[in-house]
Amino acid sequence: MHDIDKMATNLINGDRRALSRAITLVESSRADHRTSAMELIEQVAKSQRRALRIGLSGTPGVGKSTFIESFGTMLTALGMRVAVLAVDPSSARSGGSILGDKTRMDHLSRNPNAFIRPSPSQSHLGGVARRTREAVALCEGAGFDVVLIETVGVGQSETIVSEMSDVFLLLLAPAGGDELQGVKRGIMEMADIILVNKADGDLKPTALRTCADYAGALRLLRKRPQDPQGYPLAMTVSAIEEIGLSDAWQKITDLVTWRKEQGHFDRRRAEQAQFWFAEDVRQGILATLQTGEASTLMHDLSAKVGRGEITPARAAALALQELKSV
Amino acid sequence: MHDIDKMATNLINGDRRALSRAITLVESSRADHRTSAMELIEQVAKSQRRALRIGLSGTPGVGKSTFIESFGTMLTALGMRVAVLAVDPSSARSGGSILGDKTRMDHLSRNPNAFIRPSPSQSHLGGVARRTREAVALCEGAGFDVVLIETVGVGQSETIVSEMSDVFLLLLAPAGGDELQGVKRGIMEMADIILVNKADGDLKPTALRTCADYAGALRLLRKRPQDPQGYPLAMTVSAIEEIGLSDAWQKITDLVTWRKEQGHFDRRRAEQAQFWFAEDVRQGILATLQTGEASTLMHDLSAKVGRGEITPARAAALALQELKSV
Repeated sequence: MHDIDKMATNLINGDRRALSRAITLVESSRADHRTSAMELIEQVAKSQRRALRIGLSGTPGVGKSTFIESFGTMLTALGMRVAVLAVDPSSARSGGSILGDKTRMDHLSRNPNAFIRPSPSQSHLGGVARRTREAVALCEGAGFDVVLIETVGVGQSETIVSEMSDVFLLLLAPAGGDELQGVKRGIMEMADIILVNKADGDLKPTALRTCADYAGALRLLRKRPQDPQGYPLAMTVSAIEEIGLSDAWQKITDLVTWRKEQGHFDRRRAEQAQFWFAEDVRQGILATLQTGEASTLMHDLSAKVGRGEITPARAAALALQELKSV
Repeated sequence: MHDIDKMATNLINGDRRALSRAITLVESSRADHRTSAMELIEQVAKSQRRALRIGLSGTPGVGKSTFIESFGTMLTALGMRVAVLAVDPSSARSGGSILGDKTRMDHLSRNPNAFIRPSPSQSHLGGVARRTREAVALCEGAGFDVVLIETVGVGQSETIVSEMSDVFLLLLAPAGGDELQGVKRGIMEMADIILVNKADGDLKPTALRTCADYAGALRLLRKRPQDPQGYPLAMTVSAIEEIGLSDAWQKITDLVTWRKEQGHFDRRRAEQAQFWFAEDVRQGILATLQTGEASTLMHDLSAKVGRGEITPARAAALALQELKSV
């Protein structure tokens, strides 16, 4: 049994070990742990603390780790406390994690004002998503000013990260114009700021051209109510040479200030909470199919479907009828 | 009220109008239509007829319509009856359909041994998937020898098409080696045969090189039990000049013959039926959240979550508890 009140108090008082243990608790699937985790999050929420939640997506090779290292270090130099979390759908299969390799963020991981936590290893993306969203809430309670949530660019995980972020950054590499189409429209539409990285040395001209291409592409997108004049925007940075990072931070804070003034910030957070509520209910309902009588029923009907004794649609109709009385 | 028995008999006897009306029936979401559709499919299934179900994916611009036109026409020339269906996730938004433009398949659409049906317009991909899968079953009952199920290459729709196909073809355009990575690994892993199209004129050398690149990439994939020696494979075709099409057909039939002999064909169909059964149950359960008392409950809790009066996780736990007694 966890002493939840104590854990919450320690976490709010800035005890890093309490935070680590709290995240481990929310990552657990054990039923009693889930009950404790829910209580803990309620306790921590009472602190009313809020961090700026920044989502960051980018395919492998664009320099995401280097960017987090440089950008995170800059924020701590500005006096902020920074937490880095990850949503890594591949960790489900590999058991590993993109952030497992902390050595790639050597500097930041040893910084007392930074906290880096690898992606939870869950069997499916839905599980990873829920745990990470709860870990974000814990980091906020622990007094971090900025929570960076990173993900690799592979479709669904971006949607999930954007549903837990106030601002969504898309990190891209310099590339020929033809590769522009490599970024899916849906992902473009999520981005508040596109950062074209590696704008240094020989790659600088290509980075500038790529940036102009993306800026053009962004202008073609439909305007969203939560976009002030000039957003979404594309800009170049060099994570390795630490160029453009404070500029990027300025653009982020300008955007957030505007959204807070206009009420978009709070509205979006409320919508996100509602999204996760609905998602948790959906997952919870589907989970009941895998336990007890429902599971036996599903198994038996599935066997009949497999033998061709009943059509999938008819079997489903029977199952739905039976499940009502289970 | 539909006279289901009569519709089934007419459909099995090859009446095209009966087939069209039957597909319209399975596409309807009305509760009474669903009941009739389920009966109809059971009636039609008694015919025990089976078509070869070929899934075909490719991004816009690779020449999918031209390929279907040429390939389909060739099959009819071989004495076969060919049905073409589509799973188009974008139709949900646009209301249109990739196959709406039948003029792009001018020849085939006027062929008495071919039947072309555009993608159903449903509000979500799950709906499109279910309807298309049922339309495939109707086409089989109507005596078609080959059912081609086409989709645009946008992630999830490919998974859905592969879950209703015996053989999965991936149509690609000639491209520089760098763009190889543009095809996601997950989609590569679904393909039985990669067809590099446009292997004609100036593009022929590029097509051959692209084909060699993909052949190499396929060799790196883990061997699946349902792959005979030499599969999955990559080959070039020219839909416009009708080159390589009979070769492709030969490769398809060799594969299918082997899979039937080894029992993979029947096993896969049984697994697919089970997949769709589970999927129908999941969709059915989630649909209950949008009706009656459950919907009111969800709405009230969601409002509280939005106002920050309760955490998403706690609200979900309450909802799941309440839903048991609804």
